[in-house]
Amino acid sequence: MSSVERVLSDIDANLDRSLARLFSLLRIKSISADPHYKQDCRDAAEWCARTLNEIGIEAGVRDTIGHPMVVGHYRGAGAGAPHVLFYGHYDVQPVDPIGLWERDPFDPAIVEVNGEKRIVARGADDDKGQLMTFVEAARSWMAVEGRLPVNVAVLFEGEEESASPSMVPFLTENAEELKADYALVCDTSMWNRETPAISVFLRGLLYEEVVVQAASHDLHSGYYGSAARNPIHVLTKILADLHDGNGRVTIPNFYDGVGDITPEQKAQWASLGFDQQAFLREIGLSVPAGETGYSALEQVWARPTAEVNGIVGGYVGEGAKTVIPAKASAKVSFRLVGDQDPDEIRRNFRAFVAERLPADCKASFLNHGGDRAVNQPSDSPLVRKAQQALSDEWGRQAVLIGMGGSIPIVAQFKRILGMDSLLIGFGLEDDRIHSPNEKYNLTSYHRGTRSWARVLAAIAE
Amino acid sequence: MSSVERVLSDIDANLDRSLARLFSLLRIKSISADPHYKQDCRDAAEWCARTLNEIGIEAGVRDTIGHPMVVGHYRGAGAGAPHVLFYGHYDVQPVDPIGLWERDPFDPAIVEVNGEKRIVARGADDDKGQLMTFVEAARSWMAVEGRLPVNVAVLFEGEEESASPSMVPFLTENAEELKADYALVCDTSMWNRETPAISVFLRGLLYEEVVVQAASHDLHSGYYGSAARNPIHVLTKILADLHDGNGRVTIPNFYDGVGDITPEQKAQWASLGFDQQAFLREIGLSVPAGETGYSALEQVWARPTAEVNGIVGGYVGEGAKTVIPAKASAKVSFRLVGDQDPDEIRRNFRAFVAERLPADCKASFLNHGGDRAVNQPSDSPLVRKAQQALSDEWGRQAVLIGMGGSIPIVAQFKRILGMDSLLIGFGLEDDRIHSPNEKYNLTSYHRGTRSWARVLAAIAE
Repeated sequence: MSSVERVLSDIDANLDRSLARLFSLLRIKSISADPHYKQDCRDAAEWCARTLNEIGIEAGVRDTIGHPMVVGHYRGAGAGAPHVLFYGHYDVQPVDPIGLWERDPFDPAIVEVNGEKRIVARGADDDKGQLMTFVEAARSWMAVEGRLPVNVAVLFEGEEESASPSMVPFLTENAEELKADYALVCDTSMWNRETPAISVFLRGLLYEEVVVQAASHDLHSGYYGSAARNPIHVLTKILADLHDGNGRVTIPNFYDGVGDITPEQKAQWASLGFDQQAFLREIGLSVPAGETGYSALEQVWARPTAEVNGIVGGYVGEGAKTVIPAKASAKVSFRLVGDQDPDEIRRNFRAFVAERLPADCKASFLNHGGDRAVNQPSDSPLVRKAQQALSDEWGRQAVLIGMGGSIPIVAQFKRILGMDSLLIGFGLEDDRIHSPNEKYNLTSYHRGTRSWARVLAAIAE
Repeated sequence: MSSVERVLSDIDANLDRSLARLFSLLRIKSISADPHYKQDCRDAAEWCARTLNEIGIEAGVRDTIGHPMVVGHYRGAGAGAPHVLFYGHYDVQPVDPIGLWERDPFDPAIVEVNGEKRIVARGADDDKGQLMTFVEAARSWMAVEGRLPVNVAVLFEGEEESASPSMVPFLTENAEELKADYALVCDTSMWNRETPAISVFLRGLLYEEVVVQAASHDLHSGYYGSAARNPIHVLTKILADLHDGNGRVTIPNFYDGVGDITPEQKAQWASLGFDQQAFLREIGLSVPAGETGYSALEQVWARPTAEVNGIVGGYVGEGAKTVIPAKASAKVSFRLVGDQDPDEIRRNFRAFVAERLPADCKASFLNHGGDRAVNQPSDSPLVRKAQQALSDEWGRQAVLIGMGGSIPIVAQFKRILGMDSLLIGFGLEDDRIHSPNEKYNLTSYHRGTRSWARVLAAIAE
C-alpha cells in the first residue's frame, strides 16, 4: 500500500470524526458583513488556528483593521519540496431572509434528499466545508505518514464575504512570509456531480453603494407629493438606465478591455455538454436574461455584468405609509472580464449617476472594493498533475472551466506576491451558497478531502 | 360675559391640565400599521372613551376586524339644535427612521425653538393633538355651561394611518347611529402661522403594493449574474416608466376625469400669496419636481401623482452581499383629483406592470385601499359661520383652501352617510407629520381649542 492509499484509508475510517470537527466550525456565527458578529468571527479564527496547531501546522491569529487572519506554516517537507500557500475563508454570508431557512443555519445537520446526503448549514459549502477538505487531508497525511508531501503556508481570512478590506495591506506587509511557489485555493465548484474541475478563468468584481438624497427629511406624500423630488424615482430611473434593451450595460467605456470569446474557447465550452435549460430550470427560470446573442454559459463565464444586489428606500414595513423619503440607496456590483479596469469603471459609474441627478438631489457613494478578472495558466505541469490526481479520485477526466463568481484574492496573490493560483473546489451549482438552506454534499466533503490528499502527493512529485 | 367668553377663559385657565391630558394620550404607542402595536392601539381607544365619558359624552370602544372604533354621543342640546359628527383618529404613523428623532417619539415634551413653543412627539399634530383640541373645547363647554351648544356624535378611528380597512363596513353597519347633519373633521392645516383655513378641496388616494418574483430563491450573483433575471432590474424599469420626461404619469387613461384649474381658482390661489420658494426651502429643495408647467401649489392641490413610497429588494444590511434576490417589491400610491376613478386606475396600474414583465417573472399585488378626491361646498351658511368664528379667534380672515393630502373618510361620509364635512385643522406645514421630530405648536393646540369653542357656538346659531 502506497502512502497515498494509506492516507485515503485513514480519511475513510475517520469520516465521522472529521464531520464532527466541521460541525463545530459551522456552529460559529462568523458573519463578517454584520458588525454584530465581530466576536464570532474571532472565535472562528481561533478555532482554525487551534485546529491547525493540533495537526502540526504551526498557526496563529493575526489582528487586522477588520476581522483577524489565520496564518500557519509547515516546513517539514524539506528544502527541495514545493512550497504552497493554502487559502480559504472562515467567514460566511448573512443568513437573511431567515424565514426561508428550513433549519437553524448555525445548527448543522446531515439531511438526506433524493438519496443524497447533504450537510446543511450556512457556510457548509462556502467556505467552511471547502476549507476543511484541505485541513482534513493534511490531518490524515500527518496521522498516517507523520509528514506532508509539500511545505505549506496557510492563510485563512475572515472578510471574504465583506470585500476583504484587510487583505491587500496584510499581503503587502507580510509578503515575504506568505510568498510560496503558488497558491491552492478551495472556494470553487465541480463541473457537475461526477466531474471535478479546475477553474482557470474568473470574473472580477467591483462593488459600489449609492445613496441618493433629495429633501432634508422624510415628507408626507399628500402635502408634498409631486412638488417634492422623490429620491426613489431618481434612483429607479438611474438604475433602469444601466442596461439597454439588449441587456448591454450603458455606462460609457464599460466594454473597454472585454474581448470576444475565441472560437477555441467556444468549442471547448461546447464540448462540456452544458445543459442550459436544466441550469435555468433548477432556479425556476427558463430563458437567459443577459445580453442578447450569448448563451447562459457565455453570459456567466465570459461577459461582464451590472447587477443591483440590493435596494431600499421609504417605508418597507407591513401596511401602507404615505411618505416621500429623504433618501434611497442601492448596492450595485459589476462582474468584470478580460482587461476591464475596476477603477475606471468605478469612476464612470459615479459619473453616470451624477449626470442623471436632477436639481436638488445629491448622490454619495460607498466603495465596497473591487478587483480585475483573472486568467490562470491552463497548460502548466502543475495543472496537469492536479488534473490527473482529481481524475484518479473521481474516475472521470477533470475539466478546465471558467467561473462567473469573483475571487479577488487570486488577483491579489498575482499582483502582490507574484504567485499563480490553482483553483480546485468541490461545490455544486445547487449548493445555494449565499442563499437560505445552503448545503454541501457529503460526497463533496468526503471525496474533496480525498482529492486534496492525492493532489498534495501529485504536486510533490 | 357671554357663554363663549366664559368658555374661552376656562380654556386659558386650564391649559396646563389640558396639555397633561394630551401628553397621556401621546405616550401610547398606537402605531396602527405595525401589528406589534395592536394592544397599544386598543389602549389609546380606551383612553379616548374614558376621556369622553369623563366630560359627559357617553362613549364606548367598538371592536372591528382591525383596530377598534370609539363612538360617543351627546344629545343634551335638544331636538332643535344641529347635530354634528366629530371625527378624528387616535392612531399614528410608524416612527422609523428612529435614529433621526431628537427625542423618544413617545415621550412628549414642550420644546422651545426660535421663541416658539412646540409639542414634540409622534402624533403631536397628526392626529392626537388635533383631536384633543375638539375634546378640550367640549370639556370647557361642559365645565362652564353644563352643556354643549349642539348635539354631538363622536367617531375616533385607529386605522387612519393604515388605510382604514374597517371604516367602510363600520359606517355601513352603523349608518343610522352615526348619521348627523354634517361632520366636523380635525385633521388638516392652517394656511400659515397667522391664518386659519377651511379645506374645501382634497385629493383622493389609491395605494398599491407590487411584488415582482423571478428565480425560485436568492442566487449568488457570480454564478448566475446576467443569466438569471434580476427582479430589482425589472421593478426599477417598471417604476422608472411611471413618469415621462415632463413628470406626467404614463399609465393609460390616468388623466381621465382630471379637469384643468379654472381661471377663478387660479386667481383665488394667487391671492393667497403662497411663497413657493419658502415652501421648498423649508424641506431643503428649490424647484417643483412634478409636472412641467404647474406651480408647486397647483401640483399639490390640483394635480394627480404617482409616488413610490417604499422599495426593497436584495441585501440592504451593512456591507456588501453578492446576491440576486428572488423578489423585489414596492409600495406605490396615487393622489387623485377631480373625477379620477381609483378602481379604474388600480386595474390600469396592474396591467401596466403586467405588460412590462419579461419572461420568467410574475407580479403579485396588495390592495392598500383607495378613495376618490372630494370637493366640499364652499359657499354654505355653515362654512360662512365657521369662517367667521375662526376669523374672530385668529384676528385674520379665515381662507378656503385645497389640500394635497387625502382624507378618505370625507368621501366615505358623503357616500355612505350622505353627509358633507367641515374640515378645520390647526397643523402647520413644518409640523413634520409622518416624519421624525413631529411637532404641534402650542399656539395650534391652545388657539385650536379656543377655535372649536367658538365654532360650536357659531354653528348652533
